Amino acid sequence: MKVFGKAYRTIWLAENGKDIGIIDQTKLPHEFSVKYLHNLDDACHAIASMLVRGAPLIGATTAYGMALAMRADCTETGIFSAEKALLKTRPTAVNLMWALEKMKETLLPLCEGDRVEAAYLKAAQICDQDVEICSNIGKYGAEIIESIWLKKGKPRSKVGGINILTHCNAGWLATVDWGTALAPIYKAYDAGIPVHVWVDETRPRNQGANLTAWELGQHGVPNTLIVDNLGGHLMQQGMVDLVIVGTDRTTGTGDVCNKIGTYLKALAAEDNGIPFYVGLPSTTIDWALKDGIKEIPIEKRDKKEVLVMTGQTVKQNIEEITIAPHDSDALNFAFDVTPRRLVTGLITERGVAAASFDSLISLFPEFSPS
Amino acid sequence: MKVFGKAYRTIWLAENGKDIGIIDQTKLPHEFSVKYLHNLDDACHAIASMLVRGAPLIGATTAYGMALAMRADCTETGIFSAEKALLKTRPTAVNLMWALEKMKETLLPLCEGDRVEAAYLKAAQICDQDVEICSNIGKYGAEIIESIWLKKGKPRSKVGGINILTHCNAGWLATVDWGTALAPIYKAYDAGIPVHVWVDETRPRNQGANLTAWELGQHGVPNTLIVDNLGGHLMQQGMVDLVIVGTDRTTGTGDVCNKIGTYLKALAAEDNGIPFYVGLPSTTIDWALKDGIKEIPIEKRDKKEVLVMTGQTVKQNIEEITIAPHDSDALNFAFDVTPRRLVTGLITERGVAAASFDSLISLFPEFSPS
Repeated sequence: MKVFGKAYRTIWLAENGKDIGIIDQTKLPHEFSVKYLHNLDDACHAIASMLVRGAPLIGATTAYGMALAMRADCTETGIFSAEKALLKTRPTAVNLMWALEKMKETLLPLCEGDRVEAAYLKAAQICDQDVEICSNIGKYGAEIIESIWLKKGKPRSKVGGINILTHCNAGWLATVDWGTALAPIYKAYDAGIPVHVWVDETRPRNQGANLTAWELGQHGVPNTLIVDNLGGHLMQQGMVDLVIVGTDRTTGTGDVCNKIGTYLKALAAEDNGIPFYVGLPSTTIDWALKDGIKEIPIEKRDKKEVLVMTGQTVKQNIEEITIAPHDSDALNFAFDVTPRRLVTGLITERGVAAASFDSLISLFPEFSPS
Repeated sequence: MKVFGKAYRTIWLAENGKDIGIIDQTKLPHEFSVKYLHNLDDACHAIASMLVRGAPLIGATTAYGMALAMRADCTETGIFSAEKALLKTRPTAVNLMWALEKMKETLLPLCEGDRVEAAYLKAAQICDQDVEICSNIGKYGAEIIESIWLKKGKPRSKVGGINILTHCNAGWLATVDWGTALAPIYKAYDAGIPVHVWVDETRPRNQGANLTAWELGQHGVPNTLIVDNLGGHLMQQGMVDLVIVGTDRTTGTGDVCNKIGTYLKALAAEDNGIPFYVGLPSTTIDWALKDGIKEIPIEKRDKKEVLVMTGQTVKQNIEEITIAPHDSDALNFAFDVTPRRLVTGLITERGVAAASFDSLISLFPEFSPS
């Protein structure tokens, strides 16, 4: 997508054909800073320090990290020691492990002399596949947006003919390009449908304010930042046409685990007859799970994320401030589960499914139980 | 209620019998600062600069402001010029106008020599009446908390036997003492019922983090600060026994206008079978209104409240930080309306009513239409 008018992916091969370019996402939205990864250490640092984040982008960075490692040591020992280093960076990231498996599958059977080139090719392929998946989610989701726009009689109001609410950041910054929840919005916007996005700030880590508002604004998509408390009122007043969010994990039955607060927006959408969609690559579906509320463990994070906020002072320094009494206790769960009964549809790379096992499995028959 | 172990009201007559003590609430939660109002100007500044806030406390400060004015000029001209000055401070505050009417009714018929003493007495009476109203809301609300506690078999877990979620600040800091939504919690706590409060931080102005967490903590009530996004998940997981919030305006039919985000918590309570109560003095009931969602105008406030946050730096300075891209647009409605169908009960100073005209009017028959 666009940044200052120029097309970017979140990760790319530099012009010298060796280094890997990334965007330092820790600096957003206050500074747009491109960094180049020259070796395995740089790649590990980028993942561990969250210069890159979002499951697909972590996978892509892992793959290129292995390619960079091959330049220094393309022996089998080199492969395994790179694997070990990368695994340490974000031990619970599923896509990191997945990318490592793919890279090992590719590299181990080859003779040492072929490994560098093959690693770069495989990493590029992993990136391109992610772009294709997200692009397809975008295509199917944009059809939904267009049909709502047509049904409303093609309005073109000042704030956009179709008002879409989103929570957190499931945009291109979390993937290689396009994003998941935001892909349909970009596709609709690029096709000339007048969309406007209500961006939930998404406390406590404020990914909506830091990332979603920034990436939509850079691409030119009209958007308005709102506190997480506002969405219900907007829906009640007819100011939201549909909701699209991402997901970290979806049960085979259609329950959706996403950033904390998603469930509240799903309730408000249901109460006001507003469609609630989820954009997801099928890799986030956990086919073994049946009851998301009971079965999905919810990550509990540092209470400091609730008590302290980061932003830019008038002197343009980045500063942390405490926003509660100093002895305050706080509780910080990162995700919640939206039960399938509140989900209008799941937008996947193969099309839109209802939030049910039968509908999902008809799109992905290869996961059928027997 | 208690601050550093000592009992306080939010406003009081100083020991010299002339000045008026208040807490500078703009400094909370980072500093507890008592200020004394010596004259009308001080009182106007306290209201206009929000050193005092909350409808009942604004009314009380207005009354004492008139008393301070009488010391300097107890003529009829003095009364009207004090009225003019006080009216300018918060032009839309209903309680301010109400307090001015009460003071004028008291003072105008008297001869000049009696006005100073009468003004102080009337202001004290206005304060005492507010305390009595809140204390009664507390009494009736505490009975609800106790009955839920008994029904659960008197649990005494580490985080409190009864978990109550509240939104914004409807505590003693917003009134003269006790508060409205928090009065039942203080009464239950003082009676030995093990309560624990989930405090919504309440973006964008963070009154939960700034005021509610502070006042509960000072009085000794166990509480945990949470982001506004968390409540739904906590309810889903059985971690909330009831919700109590305040209200800025309630229709005669029981629709509740309160701080933005209240509606989302009411939806989650309904979805999880959790009682949702509102604590309110009957003065906030607007008997003429029937449909809160259609009829109550919602205040739109400065978008800066969404884009900028205030807190304390590591060097203990109070600093403002920008938390979004610099060209971000934002929308900031201050309140939303919770429809009566989601409200379990309205806790008033005369008892608990269902959220319906018939039930409310049976408690307040003097407002019957004919």
